[in-house]
Amino acid sequence: MPIASSGRLPVCTSAGCAAKFFAPASHLSVELINLKLVRGQVADSGTTMTKKSYPLSKVYGLLEPGPVLLLTTFHDGVANVMTMSWQTMIEFEPPLIGCVISNRNHSFEMLKASKQCVINIPTAEIAEKVVGCGNTSGAKINKFEQFGLTQKPASLVTAPLIDECFASLECRVVDTGLVAKYGMFVIEVVKAWLDPAVKNPRTIHHQGHGNFMLAGERIKLKSAMK
Amino acid sequence: MPIASSGRLPVCTSAGCAAKFFAPASHLSVELINLKLVRGQVADSGTTMTKKSYPLSKVYGLLEPGPVLLLTTFHDGVANVMTMSWQTMIEFEPPLIGCVISNRNHSFEMLKASKQCVINIPTAEIAEKVVGCGNTSGAKINKFEQFGLTQKPASLVTAPLIDECFASLECRVVDTGLVAKYGMFVIEVVKAWLDPAVKNPRTIHHQGHGNFMLAGERIKLKSAMK
Repeated sequence: MPIASSGRLPVCTSAGCAAKFFAPASHLSVELINLKLVRGQVADSGTTMTKKSYPLSKVYGLLEPGPVLLLTTFHDGVANVMTMSWQTMIEFEPPLIGCVISNRNHSFEMLKASKQCVINIPTAEIAEKVVGCGNTSGAKINKFEQFGLTQKPASLVTAPLIDECFASLECRVVDTGLVAKYGMFVIEVVKAWLDPAVKNPRTIHHQGHGNFMLAGERIKLKSAMK
Repeated sequence: MPIASSGRLPVCTSAGCAAKFFAPASHLSVELINLKLVRGQVADSGTTMTKKSYPLSKVYGLLEPGPVLLLTTFHDGVANVMTMSWQTMIEFEPPLIGCVISNRNHSFEMLKASKQCVINIPTAEIAEKVVGCGNTSGAKINKFEQFGLTQKPASLVTAPLIDECFASLECRVVDTGLVAKYGMFVIEVVKAWLDPAVKNPRTIHHQGHGNFMLAGERIKLKSAMK
């Protein structure tokens, strides 16, 4: 199977792919000033996390709308982050997710080896950082440092939470049987974190070649659907 | 495996789930007036389809943002439609999609038996029809008739296109090996149709319990990503 051509977000490290940066949102400034990031370690700025524990039963509502995600891994003393948007819910609770990841991504081997990750959900405010993470390889640079993404320790896995994302889901790989054929890791969310202050997150939705749709209006319809 | 509790959109046929209707958009009026829908047959209003052939290589850009979909099937002389939003791209080209469908859905057996379907992408204009399709069962009613959805013949599969959707993807099931464990059908898009007049479709993105996000602002970022 042509896994080399499957999955999302091929790596590019050419000068033409250099990411531009947004200025960090004001509430992140303290975190960034305090940042003492050392390559190969999980950094923690020491400030209180704004995210609170979130019920596992509600996790599907975060992922089902199809946001671009930042997937963090940690292996052999080094943390990494990749941009991902080929994923689907598989089960409500415990939440199971199918993630399709190309073996050309540095995170592919890190996830396969560590069997743990964190799925972080970014919003429009850090869209260029997200694209930057998709255009570069963790095999060559420390993306957290490069793009100003703050690591926070997770509670149950070694991969870090990303503080600039409004939601972070600690996950364990539960099935690698589909990796060889489809590049699909089945992962289980074991702990979820959400910033309750973010009411209508402008999640980012990839449409190909740098085109993104941002989450817009919210509507409520009479529905018996879960 | 608890497949009975996996997948999306449990069926509800109680009175409380009755769908309200939007008035059809004006460009659809002719279609609806001409509609001669007979249960068990694919109906064609006879008017020209507004959708044009669309390159298979661009299909991922339609599905990756995570829209709610209307999946049509045709088996034993009867067409059906279900609402679905647990799917992911698996391969760019030929486009492979992993669709997680609960075996409680009438479409589950129809898809398993016919090995063909059409994925139709609806927009906010028909959001209540979409929810209506999710709240009812094709085992009991003809949803096309109930919700005023117009069938058009597909070119390569027996399942119908839905005329009110701006995009329709004719698909064949290529792998049922993941159905028993995860309710996941791997399907291949063999023909794609898109209405070129719809520039920024307000796709619908499910967040649980009748809450939906509508596609908002589009942005373009400098990216090397496909």
